[in-house]
Amino acid sequence: MEYTQLTEDSVVDYLKSVPAAKEVLGDLDNLDIREIGDGNLNFVYFITNRSDPTQTAVLKQAVPFLRIVGKDWPLPKERMTFEIMALEKESELTPEHVPEIYHSSHDMSLVLMQNLKDYPVLRGQMNEGTYFPNLAEHVSTFLAKNLFYTSDWYLDHRTKKEMVKKFINIDLCKITEDFIFTHPFCKSDTNVYNERLTEEDINFIHEDDELKIHQAELKYKFMNNAEALLHGDLHTGSIMADEEKTFVIDPEFAFFGPAGFDVALFIGNMFLAYFAHAHRQTLLGNDPSEYRTWILDQIRETWNKFDAKFESYWKHHFEAEKDLFWDYPGGEKAHAEYRRRNIARIFDDSMGIAGSVMIRRILGLAKVSDIADIEDLDARAEVERMGLRMGKELIINHGKYTTIEAVADLATSISPAGQAVPASSAG
Amino acid sequence: MEYTQLTEDSVVDYLKSVPAAKEVLGDLDNLDIREIGDGNLNFVYFITNRSDPTQTAVLKQAVPFLRIVGKDWPLPKERMTFEIMALEKESELTPEHVPEIYHSSHDMSLVLMQNLKDYPVLRGQMNEGTYFPNLAEHVSTFLAKNLFYTSDWYLDHRTKKEMVKKFINIDLCKITEDFIFTHPFCKSDTNVYNERLTEEDINFIHEDDELKIHQAELKYKFMNNAEALLHGDLHTGSIMADEEKTFVIDPEFAFFGPAGFDVALFIGNMFLAYFAHAHRQTLLGNDPSEYRTWILDQIRETWNKFDAKFESYWKHHFEAEKDLFWDYPGGEKAHAEYRRRNIARIFDDSMGIAGSVMIRRILGLAKVSDIADIEDLDARAEVERMGLRMGKELIINHGKYTTIEAVADLATSISPAGQAVPASSAG
Repeated sequence: MEYTQLTEDSVVDYLKSVPAAKEVLGDLDNLDIREIGDGNLNFVYFITNRSDPTQTAVLKQAVPFLRIVGKDWPLPKERMTFEIMALEKESELTPEHVPEIYHSSHDMSLVLMQNLKDYPVLRGQMNEGTYFPNLAEHVSTFLAKNLFYTSDWYLDHRTKKEMVKKFINIDLCKITEDFIFTHPFCKSDTNVYNERLTEEDINFIHEDDELKIHQAELKYKFMNNAEALLHGDLHTGSIMADEEKTFVIDPEFAFFGPAGFDVALFIGNMFLAYFAHAHRQTLLGNDPSEYRTWILDQIRETWNKFDAKFESYWKHHFEAEKDLFWDYPGGEKAHAEYRRRNIARIFDDSMGIAGSVMIRRILGLAKVSDIADIEDLDARAEVERMGLRMGKELIINHGKYTTIEAVADLATSISPAGQAVPASSAG
Repeated sequence: MEYTQLTEDSVVDYLKSVPAAKEVLGDLDNLDIREIGDGNLNFVYFITNRSDPTQTAVLKQAVPFLRIVGKDWPLPKERMTFEIMALEKESELTPEHVPEIYHSSHDMSLVLMQNLKDYPVLRGQMNEGTYFPNLAEHVSTFLAKNLFYTSDWYLDHRTKKEMVKKFINIDLCKITEDFIFTHPFCKSDTNVYNERLTEEDINFIHEDDELKIHQAELKYKFMNNAEALLHGDLHTGSIMADEEKTFVIDPEFAFFGPAGFDVALFIGNMFLAYFAHAHRQTLLGNDPSEYRTWILDQIRETWNKFDAKFESYWKHHFEAEKDLFWDYPGGEKAHAEYRRRNIARIFDDSMGIAGSVMIRRILGLAKVSDIADIEDLDARAEVERMGLRMGKELIINHGKYTTIEAVADLATSISPAGQAVPASSAG
């Protein structure tokens, strides 16, 4: 089928050509179709059977430009091909944490999938101070399964390299290379600053030699290490959840990169939430300590559970498929040590990149609502300075922090959990 | 054109369909065609105009199996596609160091190219003790140009990733993964040992925990770091040279891997030659010191010239294309430091992999004639033990050796340049 851009009016006709649509939605002549209009990149339609609201689905279609900017910013609609391929792989490895796919079309750059309307976006809910008792458990499973089972430690050489080739995702990687790894660290026109940040605050990042060198190394690693299939955009805005369930959506940035990258995105965003709640909790009328301690607990648990799960999948695979290389007296012990060193190296990569992620959300174009929605600009700047300090320390000195507990302690040394950022006198 | 396997009889008919052939060879009805029969993988024809021997060319055709084993070992003939693509890139970057290509065909898996018969294979000539005054100068240029100009430090993001994709070379990488990085380090049926090596000699490699862990890490790096376009098989048997000129041939293993890999292959093989000549020079009736010192000089010069050239290309590119990221007071100095650290990291990778290369040529299937042709098996074993000791030290402790001088000193500490391995009493 040749590509056409759908509209609210033409969605039904398209669905009539899709056998799975009738199964999911029932009567295709009685559908409510609403474009929800909150995608930065794509068009997203909520589709519901008017007679039976449980018969519902989401249709997501990519257009050949960046929606938020318009046709002036072309972006290949083939990005949906990467999203579909990644969703398929994630569905195989972690079906409980991704939306069910009913239908997909590479030609039409679209996917018809489970409507997750009962699971709001994690970031927004965290801004309101909601707790998610299973968050670390679920995210660590998503990370450990998708990363381990797409690495050379599990896949055979041919499958891995064929996947790497299929997932060379030039255009969306370029967005990450620019907007996470480059622009926020220099005087780029694309940056947007809170006006209360001083030149000194900004040059604290832009003009530090060691920071620049380490940041360039992290970017180089991102561009060269085809270690595992990444989601590529796994921040708290790509997660939909309630107390029971957790879903990861929008993997159009998927490609083979350093395993630590996805871990970094999630944990970096969680640290930003930790700093944001130094102010948010007082707005909510709470002592900041409880919610911020919960965030730090989730960060620690996410890494520690990831570490344990990743290693257990690996150990299991090692025991199931005897490898001649390690088959000698003591080989099992040596392999255990090899596993430990590699997981430690993934941790090290993660913490460095988490630093980049934190800084880019403060100085770069794409903000996080956790911080950017703070109306009191002085309070916001104070929160931002915490993120800049922690980000810089992690970028330069990630090698010094060998446990997630040490990294969490770094966050509390910058801003103790119980300490609030009060409203400014001007605010 | 559909693929057919050529023979001495059918080559002329094929050449008549190739416009370039007449230009190079003149009268196509008066050609002498000889299959030289010394390729492990492919068929290689020497083609010469009987009336004018200066009108000559080589035709190399891949067959869908490993020639040395036969049809029982299938190997996609599409490997020639990688050789052609790599030759084209190398011809662009270092035309003076690769054979001139007259014609190539992906369909027929063949290339018609300059006949280098006046430039014998380096390894054989070095076995006879021949000196090459320009070797380090030429090899360092080949390495520095081909590696720097295919890295992300030079190429734009799109060109680089499109090349990485085109050069995913699954089958030939697998040969390297098995025969360089795996089998020689374990009890594999593919290994071949000099019968005078003891079980202790072999277990010195096969049963050392630290060695195994570091070797597994080197293999992982080979499989995951798509840093630069490698030749992939750059040992002294892939070089043809006389005193004036140096050519690198046979890049069918080409793919994007760690930049240190090609450096490692060349330098690892040169160290093996250094050890071999502890015996070979006495067979030639010489004091071993002079030739072995020359080999060490070439090793030191190759690295040091590579280092200087790689950095100068990079610096030149940096100055020509101002990069916003480094455009701040002190940015130029920071970039210089970034360059130094990366070249040091390439050195570190190179030395580790050189260790693997040395060991694989002693315990693995594919030997080097430098050592394997030593008829006195006790003397050969003594030379082999030197290679195993040095290889192991480099694999485990490459990080400790930060200069090529220190690595050369390691070689002389294992076997001083002037010290001969005498014939054994049994020999």
